[in-house]
Parts: sequence; C-alpha cells; structure tokens
Amino acid sequence: MASVKRYKKDDLTTYCLGATVSMEYLNIRPKDVMKVYVHSAFYESETKEKIRSICEKRGISCEINDKVFQILSQKENCFVIAMIRKYRCELDKDASHVVLVNPGNAGNAGTIIRSAAGFGVRNIAIIRPGVDFFDPKVIRASMGALSRVNFKYYDTWEEYANSDGAGERHYYPFMLDGSKLLHETKIEKPFSLIMGNEATGLPEEFAKIGQPVRIEHGSAIDSLNLPIATSIGLYEATKGGF
Amino acid sequence: MASVKRYKKDDLTTYCLGATVSMEYLNIRPKDVMKVYVHSAFYESETKEKIRSICEKRGISCEINDKVFQILSQKENCFVIAMIRKYRCELDKDASHVVLVNPGNAGNAGTIIRSAAGFGVRNIAIIRPGVDFFDPKVIRASMGALSRVNFKYYDTWEEYANSDGAGERHYYPFMLDGSKLLHETKIEKPFSLIMGNEATGLPEEFAKIGQPVRIEHGSAIDSLNLPIATSIGLYEATKGGF
Repeated sequence: MASVKRYKKDDLTTYCLGATVSMEYLNIRPKDVMKVYVHSAFYESETKEKIRSICEKRGISCEINDKVFQILSQKENCFVIAMIRKYRCELDKDASHVVLVNPGNAGNAGTIIRSAAGFGVRNIAIIRPGVDFFDPKVIRASMGALSRVNFKYYDTWEEYANSDGAGERHYYPFMLDGSKLLHETKIEKPFSLIMGNEATGLPEEFAKIGQPVRIEHGSAIDSLNLPIATSIGLYEATKGGF
Repeated sequence: MASVKRYKKDDLTTYCLGATVSMEYLNIRPKDVMKVYVHSAFYESETKEKIRSICEKRGISCEINDKVFQILSQKENCFVIAMIRKYRCELDKDASHVVLVNPGNAGNAGTIIRSAAGFGVRNIAIIRPGVDFFDPKVIRASMGALSRVNFKYYDTWEEYANSDGAGERHYYPFMLDGSKLLHETKIEKPFSLIMGNEATGLPEEFAKIGQPVRIEHGSAIDSLNLPIATSIGLYEATKGGF
C-alpha cells in the first residue's frame, strides 16, 4: 500500500473517487486507468460486475481494499476508487473552446467541465495560475466528465491566442460591463467563451478582445456564480444544435 | 459564550459566515440580526467600519471574539459572523416562483437562491423533504441572497398547488424527457419553474403538470447539475426583462 497517498499536484497519478466517476474513466479512457479499488461494503452488484468485467477485459487490476478509502476519501458514499495515470491533451484548434482565466475553485472547475461536456464543447483552455484539473475534487465534481474533454494550460492569454486560440475564431469575454447582452448576441462558431476568476472576473483589457458580453440580471446580486455564468453562455451558444 | 454552538436544524437562530454574507443581512434584514462577531484578525477596515456603523445605528451588539470562529467556522477566510433570528416568509402569490421538489444539497440550494435573486425571481417554494434553507451552508452559498427571497416549505406538491401556487399561473416542470425544449418554449408569467431532486429528478407524475420542458444537451452527460439547470431556466424565463 506504499503507493497510495493523498493527492499532491506534482504526483504522476490522480484518483477518481466514486463509482460513477470511475466508470466514466473506465469507459472513456480505460488506458489511463492503472488500478481500481473496491470497498468491501460496496453493494451495487450490477455496477460491481460491470467494473470487474471492464477491468478483466482491459487487464486492469481490481482489488478489494478498505484501507485505501480511509486514506483517499472523506465521503461516506465512496465505494470505488480508480487510480488514473495523468495524461496530456491537445486542444482541437478548429473546435469551440471554453477559456478559463485563473479559475480558483476545484468544485467550480468540475461543474464547468460537466456542463461543457454536456453542451458538446470539449476543449478547455486554462490560463495560469489556475486550479489543477487533475485534482480529485475537480474530477469528482465533473462526475468524471473530465475524461471527455481536452484541456490545456497556458501561461498567458497571449500564449493561447497565438497558438491553439488563433485563426478564424470568435472571442466572447464574459464581463459584468460587457458591451452587448448575451441573449442579443449571435455567438458565431468556432467560439471561445472567456471566463474570469471567481472573485475578480476578467482583467479590464479583455474589453478590447472580440465581443464582450454580459448576462443580464438584476441588482440584487453582484454577479452570478462562475459555473452558472459559464453554463448559461454554453447553453446560449449551442442551443438548437443537438 | 454559552449561547454560541454549532448550528442544528431546530435552533431558533442561525449564522451568516463571512463579511459579505453578514453585510447582506445587515443591509436587507437588519431587524433579524441579533449579534455580530468580528475576528480580531479582520483587516478590511472599510468593511469593518461599515459593519460597526450599521450595528450602532440599529442597536445590534458587535463584539470582537475569536472563540466563536473556532466553534462555528472551519473556513480560514471567515472574519465576520452574524447571528440571525430565524423568521417566517410568505410567498407572493402573484409573482413567479421557483419550486424545489426535495432539494438535497445545501451548497446547491444556496447557489439556486443566488441565481433566483439575481434574475428577480424572489419566491421559492420547497416541497418536503428538503434541505434546511437556514443552514449556514445554504446562507453562505447564497452569498447572503437568502435575505432577499421569500421561501416557504410545503408537505406535498398538492399543498403548494392548492395554496400559494394556485390561480393564474404557468407550471414548467424541468424533466429529462420534458415534451418541449426550453429554448422553444415561451415561458408565460407568472411562472413556476419546478425542479426535482439532484439524484432522482422529478417524479413521473409531473409530466402531466403544466408544460414539461427539457434543456437540450448532448449524450456525454446524464444531466446538468441542479443549480445549472435551474439558472438556465431562470435566464431563459426572464431575459430581456431587466
């Protein structure tokens, strides 16, 4: 058991906490699943059978081991843990992107990934500093949808804009003082929806990039929460397309 | 200090954890603020001054007391706590509502409240069993916006539909198999956007109530997360109205 310890950013492996989350990786990126741990109290025999069968077919070791859960999970309802080899993705240059500038919160990042996967926008750029997408909290909040998206880190906005974000692409920075209302804006494809940090939003200079948009709401709140704003943007940009 | 202890559902008081959250209650419902605790390490002198001044004007006791924070808050960035007297609200029968059927998660409830306040839908019905809206986790996740909405519990859907939810009102249950797409549906006012539980959604019988709608997304995910779906519904139902 020397190999299982609490996740740290520099580790070469990470963890899916929970059966649903682990199943996503087993189904979508089985080659990156190194090992699966099952708790002895896991009672969903159908899911357990599925997990066993995928592991057997793919030659992934599947072990009943309760100690691992004490080390890795504080949640009571976690009965399966998949150990994942970290991997690198490239963004699809021709596809639409979500660009997160300095995202700070793991739960929020996971929720955004889930929405992005749901709305078919499977490429996410992160401008540093930004939360570690391989953090088990991110993976869990994404419900495993991290397995379904490409994501890549860039040191600066310029680095993104001059590489994977270059070319025939439409930029939409989401800003509280964006010059156009989202619902009056035709979002052209491929798009980059650009979202700022939870506390600080986007730096002012983004007002000069592409078409800044704002989501209309009343004065009762300062702003919508970040995954909400991102998901409304994704909904508006993709509706009618499924 | 005998009066400060960890929140329990049956308590007559609850807590706002954090300066922003506490300020909302001090501004919006000052009569329900019984006491304010400030941590000795609180450094934002401008906010501190504002809090002091409101408390003085309203005759609310404001005390520097670090022990309270050890008892009530696990977060490092919490320097202000307001103790709130629980209150009862009535829903506005003529206004639009959000109806949460068996909401299970405190953080989700708070995020929904924040969005609802932002989109100007200030009446929330909760069908039991449902998370306790006075839980400090709910209040915190709402960023204090709980102070700006009316909320009321009902034992059953029928109880709601025959009382505050009665009359000339349009019901929109959000269901994964809703018969109409949200973006193709004209949401008539006053509306009730009806949302199910995080894990189980709405019971099937809601398919016969009003106009069931679904938010179109791809097959990569089973469903959107609850606050996301609710907020997209609120956005679509209120856009152009601010």
